Amino acid sequence: MNARPTDGTVKSDETLFEILGALRERDGGRVTTVAEEVGVSKSTVHRHFATLRKHGFVVKDGSTYELSLKFLDVGGYVREQNPLYKRIKPTVRTIAEETGEFVSFLVEQEGRGVYLYSERGSEGVQNDVRIGRHVLLHQSAAGKAILASLDPDRVPRIVAEHGLPPRTPETVTDEAELYEELETVRDRGYAYARGDHTKGLWGVGVPVHNPDGDVAGGLIVAGPTHRMRGDWFEDELPEYLKGVVKEFELNMSYS
Amino acid sequence: MNARPTDGTVKSDETLFEILGALRERDGGRVTTVAEEVGVSKSTVHRHFATLRKHGFVVKDGSTYELSLKFLDVGGYVREQNPLYKRIKPTVRTIAEETGEFVSFLVEQEGRGVYLYSERGSEGVQNDVRIGRHVLLHQSAAGKAILASLDPDRVPRIVAEHGLPPRTPETVTDEAELYEELETVRDRGYAYARGDHTKGLWGVGVPVHNPDGDVAGGLIVAGPTHRMRGDWFEDELPEYLKGVVKEFELNMSYS
Repeated sequence: MNARPTDGTVKSDETLFEILGALRERDGGRVTTVAEEVGVSKSTVHRHFATLRKHGFVVKDGSTYELSLKFLDVGGYVREQNPLYKRIKPTVRTIAEETGEFVSFLVEQEGRGVYLYSERGSEGVQNDVRIGRHVLLHQSAAGKAILASLDPDRVPRIVAEHGLPPRTPETVTDEAELYEELETVRDRGYAYARGDHTKGLWGVGVPVHNPDGDVAGGLIVAGPTHRMRGDWFEDELPEYLKGVVKEFELNMSYS
Repeated sequence: MNARPTDGTVKSDETLFEILGALRERDGGRVTTVAEEVGVSKSTVHRHFATLRKHGFVVKDGSTYELSLKFLDVGGYVREQNPLYKRIKPTVRTIAEETGEFVSFLVEQEGRGVYLYSERGSEGVQNDVRIGRHVLLHQSAAGKAILASLDPDRVPRIVAEHGLPPRTPETVTDEAELYEELETVRDRGYAYARGDHTKGLWGVGVPVHNPDGDVAGGLIVAGPTHRMRGDWFEDELPEYLKGVVKEFELNMSYS
């Protein structure tokens, strides 16, 4: 049967996701261009558009179809499902105010990191980090803080699934080197990024734990190299962050 | 052909959206419960889950499937496509700081309002407004400000499509009454909500225009009735908001 590819997925869904991908890549599109790009008939694209529009996931502007804010609606719901999201917002704000830098809370989802909430302090860099954006854990200080706190069995499985591709020349790409770094992170309780994710952007990441002791996410403070240096970067900022997170975790435990 | 319902949609997509809806309603679910709820076979649900998971839209936790943060990723992309989103953030923040209240920027999408960005000032109410959340325009002060600024031909079409259902006893539900109110809004440049959307929450909404003069969205400041009263509510707050928006529009025009 046509609708059953051998990998157990649904062929029509695959077409749907290709159409969504084409709309995202091109910031919207007409039936004809999307049909050409996806390699299906115009009538097929037309029917998928009709269904997507009926459910509010695309909007039509003239003869152009675009992804709609329904994704933000569903995404906002998913974010609020995360038990830490509402709790950690004031903490992220406080850190942004007190450090003046860019602060973000990252959570792990199927072996990758997702930026759940960010705040910029008064001097904070205009980062390219958008809520919902995905990052590979080894490319981020918050991600390395999460990796170091996960069940040690899971880390090689995550590496096997996602690999260790570089994002900059500073990204750790060697498995043994990563494990050694995670050992250090485990010992001292925080991780560094020295341009691992974005050239010129250095940061400190600390794990955040649930009351049951499992890691719930990672907090990162990041700034330009000229401010992330000396005692501040080597000592004061990591200790400050560990203290704030410890207090957050204690408040979670007793409420 | 099975895959072509008479309304021009795709039957398999309809099933997919029903599955997504069931996951959202139940905060996740197993194959068996979702199959029962949607009224399709377990193998059908299984194959849709496999496809959704392959594309990152659901995650699996044990034998439970949940909507994933991929929706937030796509939603964040859609939000940034809005030309005003990044521009208006500092303005929303300033208003929240200066009024101390809850401030939100609402945009219109296919005749409904979507909350694109919100900030709470120091005294701001814990509103139930989440980013991406939809609202009917006639139920909101920002929505009425938008309606009053739209091409007058569009308003009856929006009313015909979405109706004027009440959200509280204060919501305007009579078409003639709405048009009369919109006339007043057009004259003075701002709209009131007096519990139209949420009991006890009063607010002022003003339209925000693109450089081409079209309405781009509406800003609302809302607070509890005991603070939204007297000269502040009747005069100072609306004039302050109109001034801030005028400045924002001028900055947009000259940049």
